[in-house]
Amino acid sequence: MTAIDFIEQHQPEYVEELKEFLRIPSISTRTEYKPDIERAANWLAAKLASSGMQRVEIIPTAIHPIVYGESAQAPDRPTILVYGHYDVQPAEPLEKWLTPPFEPSVRKGNLYARGSADDKGQLHIHLKALEALHKAEGGLPINVKVVIEGEEEIGSKNLWSFVIANERRLRADALVLSDTSMLGRGVPSITYALRGMNYYQVEVTGPARDLHSGVFGGAVPNPITVLAEGISRLHDKNFRVTVPHFYDDVAELSRGEKKEIESLPWKEKEFRKFVGASDLCGEKGFSVLERMWCRPTLELNGIWGGYTDRGAKTVIPSVAYAKMSTRLVPNQNPDKIARLVEGHIRRVLPKSVRVKFKVLSKGRPWIADYRQGIFQKAIASLEKGFGKKAVFIREGGSIPFVAQMQSLFKIPCVLLGFGLPDENAHAPNEYLSLENYFGGIKSVALFYRDLGANGNSG
Amino acid sequence: MTAIDFIEQHQPEYVEELKEFLRIPSISTRTEYKPDIERAANWLAAKLASSGMQRVEIIPTAIHPIVYGESAQAPDRPTILVYGHYDVQPAEPLEKWLTPPFEPSVRKGNLYARGSADDKGQLHIHLKALEALHKAEGGLPINVKVVIEGEEEIGSKNLWSFVIANERRLRADALVLSDTSMLGRGVPSITYALRGMNYYQVEVTGPARDLHSGVFGGAVPNPITVLAEGISRLHDKNFRVTVPHFYDDVAELSRGEKKEIESLPWKEKEFRKFVGASDLCGEKGFSVLERMWCRPTLELNGIWGGYTDRGAKTVIPSVAYAKMSTRLVPNQNPDKIARLVEGHIRRVLPKSVRVKFKVLSKGRPWIADYRQGIFQKAIASLEKGFGKKAVFIREGGSIPFVAQMQSLFKIPCVLLGFGLPDENAHAPNEYLSLENYFGGIKSVALFYRDLGANGNSG
Repeated sequence: MTAIDFIEQHQPEYVEELKEFLRIPSISTRTEYKPDIERAANWLAAKLASSGMQRVEIIPTAIHPIVYGESAQAPDRPTILVYGHYDVQPAEPLEKWLTPPFEPSVRKGNLYARGSADDKGQLHIHLKALEALHKAEGGLPINVKVVIEGEEEIGSKNLWSFVIANERRLRADALVLSDTSMLGRGVPSITYALRGMNYYQVEVTGPARDLHSGVFGGAVPNPITVLAEGISRLHDKNFRVTVPHFYDDVAELSRGEKKEIESLPWKEKEFRKFVGASDLCGEKGFSVLERMWCRPTLELNGIWGGYTDRGAKTVIPSVAYAKMSTRLVPNQNPDKIARLVEGHIRRVLPKSVRVKFKVLSKGRPWIADYRQGIFQKAIASLEKGFGKKAVFIREGGSIPFVAQMQSLFKIPCVLLGFGLPDENAHAPNEYLSLENYFGGIKSVALFYRDLGANGNSG
Repeated sequence: MTAIDFIEQHQPEYVEELKEFLRIPSISTRTEYKPDIERAANWLAAKLASSGMQRVEIIPTAIHPIVYGESAQAPDRPTILVYGHYDVQPAEPLEKWLTPPFEPSVRKGNLYARGSADDKGQLHIHLKALEALHKAEGGLPINVKVVIEGEEEIGSKNLWSFVIANERRLRADALVLSDTSMLGRGVPSITYALRGMNYYQVEVTGPARDLHSGVFGGAVPNPITVLAEGISRLHDKNFRVTVPHFYDDVAELSRGEKKEIESLPWKEKEFRKFVGASDLCGEKGFSVLERMWCRPTLELNGIWGGYTDRGAKTVIPSVAYAKMSTRLVPNQNPDKIARLVEGHIRRVLPKSVRVKFKVLSKGRPWIADYRQGIFQKAIASLEKGFGKKAVFIREGGSIPFVAQMQSLFKIPCVLLGFGLPDENAHAPNEYLSLENYFGGIKSVALFYRDLGANGNSG
C-alpha cells in the first residue's frame, strides 16, 4: 500500500485525532494553562513516536518545554528539520465564537477551533504524512528531525538558545515548516520571502507633571500634539517613509518578478471586502501585493497619552507614547534601519520635549531562491497532492526563526502554508479547511518521498 | 468689638474647625463615600446656622445634596449669593502624600489636606467672615444666600437644575465665590475673566477589524497614522489654530489691557520651573499670560489606539481615538466653534477612514468689567485684609457655573481666589496657605461690611 492510499483510508481518524489535540487549551501566555501546555507536549511526544521517530524527548526550558523527535539517521539520505509550535493564542473574546474555541467543530468543510490553523493543525499535517510513510511504506525515506516549541505566541524566547546549544545535533539539509497561508482557497502556495521587522517604542515628555489644560493650555508643549506632529512627518504625500536613506538598500523587483506577482490568482476585490476600510492606501507606484510583500513600511501599532476613559478630563499630560514597527525587505539591515529611524524621530520632534526611543526587537528579512531543486520538488508535490496549480508567493509578516535558521545553517527553508488569508488566526472562529488539511498531508508525504528518492536534496 | 478683632482672637479655633471639616473624606466620585458626603453636608448646615443664616436646608438631589442657607432678608440691603462646594477629588496616589490626605497637618505655615484649597478651605473663609460679622457686630450688614454643592468635582449635574427651579429665591445683586488662585504668594487677586470650554471626542476607523501589521502593513489606512496626521494639521507653524474662522470673534486686547497684564508681579522663571518642560511654546506674538488667559486654544487631552501594553503586538488597529478641547475667550460662541471644529476635523481627515465626532460639552467664556463699584470694593477689602497690594487677573480655566449665573441673573460675579498656583488641587499634598486663609477671612468680612455700608451694590 502506498502512503497516499494509507492517508485516504485514515482521513476520518485523522480529524478525530486532531480534534483531541485541539481540545487541549495550550495557551502559552497564561500561567494557569501550564498543565495543559504539559499535556500538549506529552500528547505530541507520543504521536512523534508513532510517526517513526526513534528518539523522542521533552526538553524543559525556562518557560515551556520543547518537544524533539529524531528518526533513524542514515548517512546516504537527506535530512529534513521540521519545525512547528503547539502553543496557541488566548481565545478571547469568547462570546464571538460560534462554537467554543476548545470544542472543535466542523462546519461546511472547515474545522473550527483555536489552534486549528495556527499551528496545531498545520503541524499535525506533517505528523500524519510521516506516519503514513513510516507505516505504509516500511519506513521513512528521509532522515527527520522535529522541533516543536511551546512559546511561539510569546516570542520564542527559549527556542533560539536551544538551537544554539544543539547546533550540531540539529544540522539538516533543509528546514520545512507549515505556519503560513495559501494565497487563496484552492491555490496551494509556497512562501519564499518574509519581511523582517524592527519594533520601537517612543516616549515624549512635555511638562514634568500632568497640567490642567485650562490653566496652562496654549503656553506649554503638549506631548500628544507634539507626538502626533512627529508621526505626521514620517510619511510623505506619496506614502513613502521619510526617514533619510530608508530605501537605500531595498532590492527593487525585476520586471520578471513584478510580472509573476501580477499574474497570481489574487483578487483585490475580495481583499478590499475583507479589510473593510473605505479605501486602501499605500506607497505610490506599487501594487497592493507589492506594498505588502516587497516594500518596507513604517506602521504605528499603538498610541496613548492623557485621559482615555469615559467623559472628559481637562489634562495636558506629561507624557505620550507610541509603538511602531518597520517591516524590512531584502537587503535592508535591521541595525542600520533602527539607527536611521531613531535619528529621524529625534530630528522631527522639537526641543521643547524630551524623547526616549527604545528598540524592542530587530529582525532580518528572508528570501529564498525558489529555482533551487527542493522548492521545485515541493511545488510539484503540492500540485500532485491537491490536484491543482500551485504558486510561489511572498508574505508581509515576519517569522524571525526562519531568517535566523537560514543564516545559521545556510540551508533552504521551505514554507508550505495550508492556512487561508481569512482563517482568523489570533481572532475568534479560527479554522482550518479540511480540503487543505487532507491535501496537505498528501502533499507533504509526496514531498518527503520525492526528497528521499533522489538522495541528498542540498 | 469689630469683626476684625473677633477674627484675630479666634484664629486658632478657625484652624481646628477647618481641620474637622477636612477630616471628612467627602469624595463625590465614589459611592462608598456617600456617608461622608452626608456627614459633610450636615456639618456645613450646622455651621451655616451659627454664621447668621436664619433658614438652613439640606436639599437632596439625584446624586449628592445641596446645602442652602439664607439670612434674614431686609429689602434695603444688598443681597449676596455665596457659592462653594464641599466635595473633593479622590486622594490617589496616596503614597505621594507626606501626611495622610484626610489628617490635616500644618507645615511651614501651610495647611495640608485634600480639599484644603479646593474648596473646603476657601468656602470656610466665607463662613467664618459671616460668623464674625454676625457675632461681633450684632448681625449681618447684607442679605446673604449661600449655595453649597457636593458635585463640583463630578460635573455639577444637579446644581443647575436646582438654580433654574429656584430662580426667584436665589435672586441676588452679586455672586461671590472663592474657588480660584492668587497670582502668586503675597499677591491677593480677583479673577475677572475665565475661558469657556468645548470638549470633543474624535473616533477614526480604518479597517473594519484589527489587522496584522506584517501581513497588511503598507496597503491599508492605519487609523493611528491618519489621526496623527489630522492632529498635525490643527495648528500652523506659529501655533495658531488652523480651524477657519476660529479667531473671527476673538476680542483683541486693548493696549491698556496688555500693559496691565505685563505689569503684573508674575515671574516667568518660577512658572517655567513649575512646568518643568524643556521649553515653553504657544501662539506667536503673545506673552505667556496672554496665551493662557486671553487667547483661545485647541488642546489634545487624550489619545489612544492599538496596542498600549508592555512589549510588542504587531497590529494595525481598526479604530483610534482622541479627546480634545477648545478654550474660548470673549466673544467666541461655543456652538459656532463646535461646528467649525467639526467641519475642519472632517476636512483634514482623508476619505480612507470613517470619522465620528462628538461634542461632550460646551461652555461660554466669561469676563467682567472690573471698573464696576463692587469689584473696586472687593479689591480695596483685599488690600486692607492682607495689608498688601491686590491685583485683577484672568484665569485660563473654566467655571461653567459663573458664566451661566452671569447670563441668567445678569449680576456681577466676584471671584476672590485664596489658593496659590502650586497648591496641588487634584494632586497629592494639596495645601492652603494660612496667611491666605486668615487674610481671606478678614478681607471677606471687610468686603461684606463695606457692601452693606453703602446700600444696594448693583
